[in-house]
Amino acid sequence: MAVVTIEAGAPCATLINTFTTTPENQQHILDILLEATEKHIAQLPGFICANFHKTSDGTRIVNYAQWKTKQDHLNMLSDPVAARHISELRQLAAVDAHIYEVVRTFAAT
Amino acid sequence: MAVVTIEAGAPCATLINTFTTTPENQQHILDILLEATEKHIAQLPGFICANFHKTSDGTRIVNYAQWKTKQDHLNMLSDPVAARHISELRQLAAVDAHIYEVVRTFAAT
Repeated sequence: MAVVTIEAGAPCATLINTFTTTPENQQHILDILLEATEKHIAQLPGFICANFHKTSDGTRIVNYAQWKTKQDHLNMLSDPVAARHISELRQLAAVDAHIYEVVRTFAAT
Repeated sequence: MAVVTIEAGAPCATLINTFTTTPENQQHILDILLEATEKHIAQLPGFICANFHKTSDGTRIVNYAQWKTKQDHLNMLSDPVAARHISELRQLAAVDAHIYEVVRTFAAT
């Protein structure tokens, strides 16, 4: 379980990374992502959290992640071990990653 | 500010809704989304939270939302007021909405 603080104007970079794939590959991609995050990426400087989601039709995975700064995320992308995982994932899925800022949040009252 | 609980196997439906648009329309779309959520959608049954994000290049907005059940989300889609907002948004952006389940979460230690 993770309790994620999502806050408008928060000084962090939100990465939303969507992997579009086939049902045959969804679990394999998740295995790569979970292992890479647990063993390596979560220990990199600036890592706050990563949260992996899947659709029941097998075609999508989303990582909702937070890094302290955009630069920390860029540094992860050029880390040799992470870059190898990313290259492997690009063979299995269309990868669509963007950095966002939080505009506003609503919670049920 | 919102503190969002993201939990593997949690009994809620995660909606990740991506709006792809042009820089000229990004703020207008956000205005529609924020007003509709504040005045109407956040009061619908099963609403847990909505969290709006934007990219700095002006081309994307993401709503990371939680509903108690998939059916609550479906009920929102067929609510007449919400449906009117969705129809308006589809004139301004490509809307790509999917329901996810949380697989696993990682937080910095």
